[in-house]
Amino acid sequence: MLGPGVDTVTIVGTGLLGGSIGLALRKLGFAGQVVGAGPRIATLERAMALGCVERITTDLAEAVRGSALIVLAAPVSKIPELIARLADHVEEGAAITDVGSTKQTIVAAAERSLAHPSRFVGSHPMAGSEATGPEAAKPDLFQDKPVIVTPTRVTAPDAVERVESLWHGLGMTIHRMDPAEHDRLVAVISHVPHAAAVLLVRLASRSGALPVASTGFADVTRLAAGAPELWADIFLDNREAVLAALDRWLETGEEFRRILASSDRPALLHLLYDAQATRAAWRGREREVS
Amino acid sequence: MLGPGVDTVTIVGTGLLGGSIGLALRKLGFAGQVVGAGPRIATLERAMALGCVERITTDLAEAVRGSALIVLAAPVSKIPELIARLADHVEEGAAITDVGSTKQTIVAAAERSLAHPSRFVGSHPMAGSEATGPEAAKPDLFQDKPVIVTPTRVTAPDAVERVESLWHGLGMTIHRMDPAEHDRLVAVISHVPHAAAVLLVRLASRSGALPVASTGFADVTRLAAGAPELWADIFLDNREAVLAALDRWLETGEEFRRILASSDRPALLHLLYDAQATRAAWRGREREVS
Repeated sequence: MLGPGVDTVTIVGTGLLGGSIGLALRKLGFAGQVVGAGPRIATLERAMALGCVERITTDLAEAVRGSALIVLAAPVSKIPELIARLADHVEEGAAITDVGSTKQTIVAAAERSLAHPSRFVGSHPMAGSEATGPEAAKPDLFQDKPVIVTPTRVTAPDAVERVESLWHGLGMTIHRMDPAEHDRLVAVISHVPHAAAVLLVRLASRSGALPVASTGFADVTRLAAGAPELWADIFLDNREAVLAALDRWLETGEEFRRILASSDRPALLHLLYDAQATRAAWRGREREVS
Repeated sequence: MLGPGVDTVTIVGTGLLGGSIGLALRKLGFAGQVVGAGPRIATLERAMALGCVERITTDLAEAVRGSALIVLAAPVSKIPELIARLADHVEEGAAITDVGSTKQTIVAAAERSLAHPSRFVGSHPMAGSEATGPEAAKPDLFQDKPVIVTPTRVTAPDAVERVESLWHGLGMTIHRMDPAEHDRLVAVISHVPHAAAVLLVRLASRSGALPVASTGFADVTRLAAGAPELWADIFLDNREAVLAALDRWLETGEEFRRILASSDRPALLHLLYDAQATRAAWRGREREVS
C-alpha cells in the first residue's frame, strides 16, 4: 500500500494518533516493519503490547535507520525539535511527515533543519478525540475522515505521493493546500470551536448553571475535555489565524445579538434555517464519502 | 407511581417528548390510561401505533375529561394558547404541567388563564435531541436527566407533588426553582450553547472550511440541527435572559482574545485547565446520579 521499497515505517510518538496509524497499517496488511519511537520506554512498551508497533526504541537515530517513511505523531510544540534531532539520521530518499494541528511553523522548521527539505510533507489527519495514549488507539480512527496535506514548492512529488498513499490506505480523503491555508481553515473548524467549548463551560460554571446541564451541553462542550498543554501550544502556535477567526466569530455573535435584541423573527429564522441546512448538506457529503 | 386517584394522564402533543413520556409511563407499569391529544390525527395515530398512548383525540375538551394529570408537550409558542383553550374543561383537582424550554411566559399565561391557577406547575425536563416526532420517542429518554420544576407562591403543594412524582417515576433528578431563575439558567446552558453551535456553522461556511471539518466539529455543532421554528420561538420568548447570557459569553470571548493576543501562556493554560476540571467534575456528578 505504500509503494515499492517501503519496508520500514517509523512512528515517533505512539499515543492515540501514532498508535492508531500502527494498528491501521497492520490491519491493512502492510508487510513491512513498523517501528515505534518516543522518549518514554513505558509508553512504547504499552504500544507494542497493544500491537501498535513491532519494534521500539527511545533512540531516534536508531528508529529512523532504514526507514522509508517517518511519521512524527508528537505534540505540535515538540515536532520542530524532533525534526532537528532526526535530520542527520534520515535515510536518503525517505519521506517525513507529521500529524500536527498547525502547519506553518512545523513546515518552516522542517525545511530549515533538513539537508533535503524536499523530503518533508506536512500532514494533518482530521481525526482524534479527547482520549490520549496508546490504549485509546483504534485501527479505524482515520477511516472516512479528511486529511490535509501541505506540500510547498520545494517538496518532492514522490515524497508527497508516499505520504498521501499512507493516508489513502488508512481510508482518508486527501485535501491538498499550502500551510497558511491549512492554518486559516483549522482555526475556523477546530481551534475556535475548541475555544467556544471552553468558554461555554466557563460561562456555565460562573453562572451556577451546571447542575441542570444535560446531554446537549455535554456534546457542545466535549472539546473542552482536551489536554490543556497540547491546546495551549496549538493556540499559541496558530495565534494569528485563531485571532482572525475569533474576531469573525465574535462578529457573528454581535450579529446574532442585534437580531435578537430587535426581536427580528424573520432574520433569526433565516440564521437558524441557514445553519441547519448548511450543516445537513455537510453531513450529507460526509456520509457519501463513508 | 402517580399517587392515588390518578387514573388518567393526558399528553397534549405526542412528538419526541410527549411520546417518550407515554412510553415511559407504560414501561414503568402505570395502570391507568394514557390519552394522547393534538391537532393532527396522523401524528396521534402514529403515536398510538408506536404504543406511546392508548386513546387519541383531536378534541382538547374530550382529552382532558376525567384526567388527573395533563402534560402539555407542545412547542413553547403554542402552550399559552393551549392552556387558554383547556381552561374551561379541566377537572377540579387535576394538575397541569408542560415541558416547555422557557418558563416565565408560560407560567404567567397559565396563572392568568386558569380558574384555579394553583393547579399549574411549570416543568422543563432537560432531555431531548434534534430528532422530532413520535418515531424518535424512547422510554428511557428522561432517565438520569435533570428536570426543573417551577412552582410559584400560588401553586398548590399537592399539584407540585403529583407533577414531581411523574418526573421522579421517569428517573429524573428534580431541581425546584422559580420561573425567572429557570430562564436565567437555561439561557446559559441551553440557549447560548445553541446560538454558539449555529454561529460556528455560519463561520465555517463563510470561511469555506467545511470540507475539512470532522468529528469534533460535528459534536460541537450538533445543536444547530435543531428545528429552526421551535428555536426562534425559544430565543424570542427568553430574549432578555439570552441577551444577558450572550453578553457575559461574548465577554469571556474577549477575555480569551486578550490572553491569546498577548501570548500569555500561563493565563491560557489556567483557562483550559479550569474548563477541563470543571467539566470533568460536572460529568462525574452526572455519572454518580446514574
